[in-house]
Amino acid sequence: MPEEILNDISHRRYNALRGSWVLVSPHRTKRPWQGQQEKPGTIELPQYDPKCYLCPGNQRASGDTNPHYDSTFVFVNDYSAVKEMQDDYTSPNAQGSLEEMLLKAQPEKGKCYVLTFSKRHDLTLADMSPSEIVPVVKMWTDIYSAHLSSTHALAGLNKTDFVPPSSRGDHGGKKQDQYRYMQIFENKGSAMGCSNPHPHGQIWTQTSLPEEPAAELEQLKMYKRERGTHLLVDYAKLETEKEERVVFQNEAFVVVCPWWATWPFEVMILPKRHVRALVDLNEKEQAQLAEAFAEVTRRYDNLFETSFPYSMGIHQAPLEGSEEEVECSSLHIHFYPPLLRSATVRKFLVGYEMLGEPQRDITPEQAAARLRNCGGELYRNKIG
Amino acid sequence: MPEEILNDISHRRYNALRGSWVLVSPHRTKRPWQGQQEKPGTIELPQYDPKCYLCPGNQRASGDTNPHYDSTFVFVNDYSAVKEMQDDYTSPNAQGSLEEMLLKAQPEKGKCYVLTFSKRHDLTLADMSPSEIVPVVKMWTDIYSAHLSSTHALAGLNKTDFVPPSSRGDHGGKKQDQYRYMQIFENKGSAMGCSNPHPHGQIWTQTSLPEEPAAELEQLKMYKRERGTHLLVDYAKLETEKEERVVFQNEAFVVVCPWWATWPFEVMILPKRHVRALVDLNEKEQAQLAEAFAEVTRRYDNLFETSFPYSMGIHQAPLEGSEEEVECSSLHIHFYPPLLRSATVRKFLVGYEMLGEPQRDITPEQAAARLRNCGGELYRNKIG
Ligand SMILES: O=P(O)(O)O[C@H]1O[C@H](CO)[C@@H](O)[C@H](O)[C@H]1O
Ligand SMILES: O=P(O)(O)O[C@H]1O[C@H](CO)[C@@H](O)[C@H](O)[C@H]1O
Repeated sequence: MPEEILNDISHRRYNALRGSWVLVSPHRTKRPWQGQQEKPGTIELPQYDPKCYLCPGNQRASGDTNPHYDSTFVFVNDYSAVKEMQDDYTSPNAQGSLEEMLLKAQPEKGKCYVLTFSKRHDLTLADMSPSEIVPVVKMWTDIYSAHLSSTHALAGLNKTDFVPPSSRGDHGGKKQDQYRYMQIFENKGSAMGCSNPHPHGQIWTQTSLPEEPAAELEQLKMYKRERGTHLLVDYAKLETEKEERVVFQNEAFVVVCPWWATWPFEVMILPKRHVRALVDLNEKEQAQLAEAFAEVTRRYDNLFETSFPYSMGIHQAPLEGSEEEVECSSLHIHFYPPLLRSATVRKFLVGYEMLGEPQRDITPEQAAARLRNCGGELYRNKIG
Repeated sequence: MPEEILNDISHRRYNALRGSWVLVSPHRTKRPWQGQQEKPGTIELPQYDPKCYLCPGNQRASGDTNPHYDSTFVFVNDYSAVKEMQDDYTSPNAQGSLEEMLLKAQPEKGKCYVLTFSKRHDLTLADMSPSEIVPVVKMWTDIYSAHLSSTHALAGLNKTDFVPPSSRGDHGGKKQDQYRYMQIFENKGSAMGCSNPHPHGQIWTQTSLPEEPAAELEQLKMYKRERGTHLLVDYAKLETEKEERVVFQNEAFVVVCPWWATWPFEVMILPKRHVRALVDLNEKEQAQLAEAFAEVTRRYDNLFETSFPYSMGIHQAPLEGSEEEVECSSLHIHFYPPLLRSATVRKFLVGYEMLGEPQRDITPEQAAARLRNCGGELYRNKIG
């Protein structure tokens, strides 16, 4: 393969999905590490923790009591970053004034949910079977579907009678009825700012399209206009053919360490056909997506034999958008894990990375090979 | 002030320097924190550590011995992310092919230096007086100046007879003579990926203009074309008038928590007049810049009475660039510190921040007020 030289030389790779570059320095892991050590992921936890605000039957900060749920349970975040109702704000600065250009702000409304993945306090997605993850995929789909307006191109698809919980205590101003965007994500592990090990994710829904999905959507639209095909469908096909960055695949999905990965063991789950959002998936595909989640998280844990920290998130069609925006959107899932060399040595994206551009120390091909090779049973379930 | 409502509502602020948005959720620090705790910054260190590869007279990994230097000492990083010489690479993919669009790469050469700030192992910039920081400012200026081509618009300014150290062990391919960009930065503290407390920074010089300075340069050029004035000069003036985000100022520089700050206590050092790069500064301004560094780092340490971690970096004119690029560049220094509430509780830019957009929990005005109020003597030097 003529590209093998990229294993030996420093180079930049282009992220076609975001339209930006990342610096790759393959030889750099040789440097010794005397810096910060992470605590390895907790593994000894009770199945039920009376002090956990996510366990079934427990009381939360708001005073509400959790139901005796089984798999998933959704509630409005007691410390939401955006709220349904708040006072209005219009910039007091004259148009074209210095203030208007340099001190620009816009109010932002929204609704933040927390979603548990299991009633068990001691599990993670890595411990769960694909069929136990299916209810999580369905709940994500339900909550996305419930926030589409009736005129949205995807409205009505995969619809259930699920009604999102309402928030209380929000006051001031008018309630926002239609949101522009929904970000579904999970922060796993204390290294990723997670403060409760009970398996759960978050869902932030808001009036603006945030920077990351906005940058991706620009690239997806441009590619479609130029080539007539979908960037991520073409990309999934290319990677499936090339194989070297593929970690796992089933009929509907492929898991790759993307060509442009920033984090050492970053992966992306991609559908093989054009899927605009979760609501486009049929039952069989939902099960296969659940399998992909199980495969990624189990391999992560097996890699360094630890509960592997990461931030994970789903990008898909905006809740409100033009026909072109919805049609060009491609469902995909990003996993951003910080660990680099072991359960305790992470990659820091600091200094140069913050001020210059993202930089990585091993190639995505090396990372993919290692993740490919650590499938199979979860290390902590193996006997002896 | 009509903008006071921004203390109470969630909103997005526009970063005019980068052309991007940040989500601000002022009420969010009320949430309790049960997550990861940082180790507070080390303070008991020897003045000289026989095992430190940066202390005067010690041996480094390369086998080289450090001279008995006094303040600054520069050498080529023994584990450089980019190298002066390496094999060439031309993409094997046909133009317009899928591979060429989706698997794009370019080789990157460069030279990475390490620069000590003091011979003393136990000091940080916060412990040093402005006059002790002046040699650091001068060395940054020298090394920048030494990498300008003779035809660069800034060539010859502030020139000394300093010759940058040469690297050894780089092999393969031709040597790169002229670089496009130099990133000067410091990672301070183990929370910011620093593995040696000896006060030092890094300098990466490379063939491409990386993402962050490239995005800023676009904004700076656009502003100049549209308004005829310099964005950061106008901004420094506006902030000096408004006062509420000003942390410190002297005749030549102003330190602000920028309107668009992402990190809780992020600050920027801005010259009040148009300065394209370090070489534009006269002696008096160099001393005032050193004072600004001393003021920022001392206030940081005083804030939570700890050795405050941060990544800091200097943005200035590219080493190679069009007349417009050099003329529109504005010297400025970013400080990105992770701490949020105390010496041990940091802000995590994870999940939503990685997948959606940067989000902050206190307003820049609140941060500026706190930093303004903790000037004066360094907490650990106070008697009693
Ligand atoms: O070069 P150092 O100090 O060993 O390493 C540190 O700074 C580099 C440049 O910001 C980062 O790439 C590394 O992740 C970080 O640990
Ligand atoms: O909302 P949590 O889980 O308390 O908080 C965590 O996730 C948020 C969203 O990514 C971040 O803003 C916080 O910094 C992080 O600690």
